[in-house]
Amino acid sequence: MTSALDFMLAARRSEMQALQALSVTCALVVQVSRLVHALQRERGYSNFCLGGQAATHVKMLDELSQQAREQEQVVRGALGQIDLEDSTSADKAQLYTRIAYALHALDGLPGLRQRVREETVTASEATRQFSRLVAALLAVVFEAADTAVDPRVTRALAALFNFMQGKELAGQERATGVAGFMAGFFDATLQDRLRFLQDGQQRCFESFTESADDVARTAWEQLCGAELVEQIERLRQVAVRTTSAQRVQGELGDLWFDLTSARMDTMKQIEDQLADGLQQLCAQQTRKAKADLDNQRRLLRQLDQLDRDAGQGAPRLYNVQATDLQALPGEAPGGEVNRSLLDALHDQTQRLQQLQDELEQARETLNERKLVERAKGLLMSQHGLNEEEAYRTLQNAAMERGQRLAEVARTVLEHSSQRKPS
Amino acid sequence: MTSALDFMLAARRSEMQALQALSVTCALVVQVSRLVHALQRERGYSNFCLGGQAATHVKMLDELSQQAREQEQVVRGALGQIDLEDSTSADKAQLYTRIAYALHALDGLPGLRQRVREETVTASEATRQFSRLVAALLAVVFEAADTAVDPRVTRALAALFNFMQGKELAGQERATGVAGFMAGFFDATLQDRLRFLQDGQQRCFESFTESADDVARTAWEQLCGAELVEQIERLRQVAVRTTSAQRVQGELGDLWFDLTSARMDTMKQIEDQLADGLQQLCAQQTRKAKADLDNQRRLLRQLDQLDRDAGQGAPRLYNVQATDLQALPGEAPGGEVNRSLLDALHDQTQRLQQLQDELEQARETLNERKLVERAKGLLMSQHGLNEEEAYRTLQNAAMERGQRLAEVARTVLEHSSQRKPS
Repeated sequence: MTSALDFMLAARRSEMQALQALSVTCALVVQVSRLVHALQRERGYSNFCLGGQAATHVKMLDELSQQAREQEQVVRGALGQIDLEDSTSADKAQLYTRIAYALHALDGLPGLRQRVREETVTASEATRQFSRLVAALLAVVFEAADTAVDPRVTRALAALFNFMQGKELAGQERATGVAGFMAGFFDATLQDRLRFLQDGQQRCFESFTESADDVARTAWEQLCGAELVEQIERLRQVAVRTTSAQRVQGELGDLWFDLTSARMDTMKQIEDQLADGLQQLCAQQTRKAKADLDNQRRLLRQLDQLDRDAGQGAPRLYNVQATDLQALPGEAPGGEVNRSLLDALHDQTQRLQQLQDELEQARETLNERKLVERAKGLLMSQHGLNEEEAYRTLQNAAMERGQRLAEVARTVLEHSSQRKPS
Repeated sequence: MTSALDFMLAARRSEMQALQALSVTCALVVQVSRLVHALQRERGYSNFCLGGQAATHVKMLDELSQQAREQEQVVRGALGQIDLEDSTSADKAQLYTRIAYALHALDGLPGLRQRVREETVTASEATRQFSRLVAALLAVVFEAADTAVDPRVTRALAALFNFMQGKELAGQERATGVAGFMAGFFDATLQDRLRFLQDGQQRCFESFTESADDVARTAWEQLCGAELVEQIERLRQVAVRTTSAQRVQGELGDLWFDLTSARMDTMKQIEDQLADGLQQLCAQQTRKAKADLDNQRRLLRQLDQLDRDAGQGAPRLYNVQATDLQALPGEAPGGEVNRSLLDALHDQTQRLQQLQDELEQARETLNERKLVERAKGLLMSQHGLNEEEAYRTLQNAAMERGQRLAEVARTVLEHSSQRKPS
């Protein structure tokens, strides 16, 4: 017969196994973040080559493509580590679908590289295809964060995701800036795009600072206060004032590229810190869960014996309301004598409840992001808007009503579901 | 190398395995509902025996105890079916902890039965202990509903849970009514208790009708309109008007018991329908997931081949935005020719998103219940109120502010977490 004790220990074991599975996911995420970085660099140099500077840059491009290929193999290796037969959680369905997307996108990469070398693709089309691939990889990181079961790990994953997303938008801003400065001015489309990318970065880094630990936040604040960033800000102001009649010199493009690249290099360092921190955290939480399980196992056997010694007649079992909510004494020897199995059960319930609350809090920025993305998707499909227009529509509505973006997004989605025929 | 296809199929398989695990949980829930019913009957007759009618009722009590013991063995057998080693989902931690609680409570049952026979426990204490055990079993059903991964199954579990909870309160109302009518009048405590139990039933059955299917809802509406229920309502009015100065005849107690028992018997029939429906639904959803997986497997192999035939150069992969959102053609032969693996991936993402939305909707009544229960618990521990007083406090606040109970509960919980030292 399976006893109360068996189920209580199984609950603990289930927590620990979930953490172990999460460690595997996090190791994958770390490798994905490196692949994204490699692809961002390859994208930049593909642009140079397609922009008529192939002679100067093709050697560097080949080197970067090779680096990206090697990192792709690392990611594919990490994916191979996942035991696909052992997937009893329905949560995995979403993560696996995102991974399938990303793998499918990666399968198209050799073809894209070939077209870049043959110059049978335009710079903007190549950028678009690289960016789609990066987006597919970022979606894996997002899903990993969204399905993580430990509040602290969720927070660390959310911080990493938001940072990666912000860095990706920074990379796109770099490319847009290069295009505008090289042309001598920013037309309405480029101006819109710059604003969209800058707003997006701000949102991402705000969400990042909400979830990040102190070390990462401090590193980020230092970068924000750096001379470098002030100079970028001045160039942004210059870009806004250009028109076809008021042009600037093309050399500003080189300056812009150097400054924004230096900023992205620092971002990469922070990203690496976040990735390292994530892995340490996973290892630490798993060790802790393991130790808790061992303690619990020892303690419960003792409590069970005490309960049996006390005899079947003792109705301690029904004193749920009366028990105090102190934590388990854990290592304290002798402390357990005054506690019953029921107290331990009560503690476990309280602890799981608290974990659940913390998890919901940790997921808040992720949930808001989901709302905004879905509202954007809805506006795009229903009104034929592009992503920037859809975002601008939400943003304007938010400003008019003095609401947060996520609230406006929720309203948009609710209205739409009400209009659906039932 | 693991391919996009492997992950896509693994996602489907993960969904199916989760449904299979859910079927096991539902089978357990059905047996738990029968055990609860057996315990409710045993509780009633234990009360008779402790209320001085042992001679007339002890034989029936022994029979009922035996039935409950047999059903307990069935439940323990179903628990033994759960593979505790194979628990990779952290969700299981909560369900297992509830089960451990329930098992521990069941372990105390032989002792309680003995004290009932020896008449070394009062009727009200025995009732309290039986009710705690029933509450522990109901908590298992609640947790099963709260962690179910299929929206339709979640809805069916929520309907069953709310119905069981309503029936339990009806059982407690029966006992309270018997006590009051036998005494000739209802003092303030009994009046409060009656009101609390009647309000609680109303809430439960409202939630039930929100989640139930048409058959169960119709059966319930028929019962609500029955002559029997009108008579019970009249006796409720009589109970409210009694005082120590305005008494009624004790025989009303027998009438009350017969009427409320007949009502509970009909409830039991509806409960059984709900349980049957739940099991059919589980089997049906699992069969469907299995068939989907088989179709998907066949289709994906074909699509994969088509994609390979089209050659690596074809960038279909990047047409995410351009694909339409039609459902997979499934069985339609030939239809798949125009579809790529990417379309299938896109459909899967849409479907999972929709499932997730429906799941959140299906959990709404459960989430509201959690809020109310936690706010009640907080008021009980912080202000030393009993459950009825805590509930009354919330209810009064809801009436004053014109808010729903769940909203008031949320406010109470938010205030409390703000006051916590951080």
